[in-house]
Amino acid sequence: MSERFCIALDAMGGDHAPDMVVAGADIARERCPNVDYLFVGDEERIRPLLDKYPALAAVSTVRHTPDAVAGDAKPSVALRTGRNSSMRLAIDAVAAGDAACVVSAGNTGALMAMAKFVLKTLPGIDRPAIASFFPTLRGESVMLDLGANLECDADNLVQFAVMGTVFSRTVLGLLEPTVGLLNVGSEEQKGHGSIRQAASALRASALAKNFRGFVEGNDIAAGTVDVIVTDGFSGNIALKTAEGTAKLYAEFLKRTFKSSLLAKLGYLLAHGAFQKLRLRTDPRRYNGAMFLGLRGVCVKSHGGTDAVGFANAIGVASDLVVHGFNEKIRDELARLQAALEAAALSPESTEAAAV
Amino acid sequence: MSERFCIALDAMGGDHAPDMVVAGADIARERCPNVDYLFVGDEERIRPLLDKYPALAAVSTVRHTPDAVAGDAKPSVALRTGRNSSMRLAIDAVAAGDAACVVSAGNTGALMAMAKFVLKTLPGIDRPAIASFFPTLRGESVMLDLGANLECDADNLVQFAVMGTVFSRTVLGLLEPTVGLLNVGSEEQKGHGSIRQAASALRASALAKNFRGFVEGNDIAAGTVDVIVTDGFSGNIALKTAEGTAKLYAEFLKRTFKSSLLAKLGYLLAHGAFQKLRLRTDPRRYNGAMFLGLRGVCVKSHGGTDAVGFANAIGVASDLVVHGFNEKIRDELARLQAALEAAALSPESTEAAAV
Repeated sequence: MSERFCIALDAMGGDHAPDMVVAGADIARERCPNVDYLFVGDEERIRPLLDKYPALAAVSTVRHTPDAVAGDAKPSVALRTGRNSSMRLAIDAVAAGDAACVVSAGNTGALMAMAKFVLKTLPGIDRPAIASFFPTLRGESVMLDLGANLECDADNLVQFAVMGTVFSRTVLGLLEPTVGLLNVGSEEQKGHGSIRQAASALRASALAKNFRGFVEGNDIAAGTVDVIVTDGFSGNIALKTAEGTAKLYAEFLKRTFKSSLLAKLGYLLAHGAFQKLRLRTDPRRYNGAMFLGLRGVCVKSHGGTDAVGFANAIGVASDLVVHGFNEKIRDELARLQAALEAAALSPESTEAAAV
Repeated sequence: MSERFCIALDAMGGDHAPDMVVAGADIARERCPNVDYLFVGDEERIRPLLDKYPALAAVSTVRHTPDAVAGDAKPSVALRTGRNSSMRLAIDAVAAGDAACVVSAGNTGALMAMAKFVLKTLPGIDRPAIASFFPTLRGESVMLDLGANLECDADNLVQFAVMGTVFSRTVLGLLEPTVGLLNVGSEEQKGHGSIRQAASALRASALAKNFRGFVEGNDIAAGTVDVIVTDGFSGNIALKTAEGTAKLYAEFLKRTFKSSLLAKLGYLLAHGAFQKLRLRTDPRRYNGAMFLGLRGVCVKSHGGTDAVGFANAIGVASDLVVHGFNEKIRDELARLQAALEAAALSPESTEAAAV
């Protein structure tokens, strides 16, 4: 898709909204020249901000609503009472075809509930998943689910593997991304029944060639595989544990450089090199969790991010639209379905899948 | 306990056994002068090693067996066929009263299965848990379970909270350790049913004063609480994810210091400060996962560790014996039981626990 398309922005979601939403869109505008923006939210607050960015204002429209979803609202309550909220109307714009995708830094649970209700899941996908990518020793990997589904059966995990593979091809540009199932050991008998069943199903599937079996927590940062598939409970804990550990080491590093005069001098000399490291590991660079499996592209930005981080979330959404992500998932699922049906005809594979 | 006691060592467990077991015991000997050692394993290989350390040999005995548990043996198979293995005989020595505790760097699953079978669990504890401590922004915290029980009910989690609290007091020296349940959000309605039930039970228990509710993955490294309680699946993934992320940042740091001439000079100046950081975050310092809840002290060392790491695992085992860890768990459980029974008499608390 190289023609112009529109991105709907929940202008009221996030700790620093609407300021960082508008400022972030202006940064994204320079990178994605084919995009129009639809700001949904309190027009009285959005207009004065847009006035500061005339080039952005020229490609933007504002849809006014006084309502917004609270950051701590229960998803079910937000779904019931937030029909006129900026978040809901931004999603509605995608469903109505006014926008190709939506980006919000608001309440994650509410966004997932509304997106699922309004956009529905893709054919062949039972449940959408939250995915994100992050730096590893070998480049970048993607992990899903990060919290949309606390308990997952084998079918869910297989569908996540398909979506993660397509995501890795589409956004990270890998031709043959490898896939691993997060577990507590690499031996076949390890882990919950659903994980072992998913492993059997993947081994018998069209993804078998790139399936690397079970991986463990340390394989995430090692980049052992390109796509890490897990349930939303474990994925959320792994993601946040990694973020917390990264913060801990950044703090240890800071304290170390401040601990003596020589260390301070050393920092002055190494400063340029550390600037590069900081850029590479900047959490804003990895901002933008994708809700995969919906009939529409929906990206969740970190609630506490700034304009730079929000611009990156817009960039991810734009990539998914430009590369026809959802169409590719549909094709891949059809291929997989055909292979699964072929496998079901062969008694040996069925037996293997039931182990 | 200040009189002499004996530590049984599985001399054949671990990648570098028996060499690092004997060398590690010699390092530990200097730190714990009241300890005798019982080496269980292949006497022909152990004797020549002991000859190198006469002071250690003077406080050591060797119990010969030609059998050892393979690193990749299934726990059930090891339990059935390993009755004469070095691991099993070392545990038997604790059950027979010949040793106060056992340390092994062998197969974790086999060690847990054998220790549970031979030593049995403490009264009031349904399942033993694996615990370990690690560096945080605020000091050191302990987390359990790290992989002994993939699925846990609310009772298991409450018992883990008790054991973690006593461990934190005994080994880390905290008077009033705070406790948190690992979850995907801090709101009350988040997470699996078993976690929510455990939270209700802890709020109504003798531990209520120090219970901080739910914590998330990033709270682990932040040191938000002193004791993190979780099921063995999530705990194992969190621990290994943190280890992997720490390794990733150490590697990024190394590459950064090598990336330019100025950075290399900077490293030379800051070298002393970084040596201290390395000591503080040395994984060998945190070697030694405790099997808590057994009628006997059993410590698992990392399989790939060296003599320094193994000596630390011996040190942890020695601390648990010297401070009467198991007796304290028994007392704490009795206190908790009394409080739970008192709470059960009050209809309000029962209702709260059923939410």
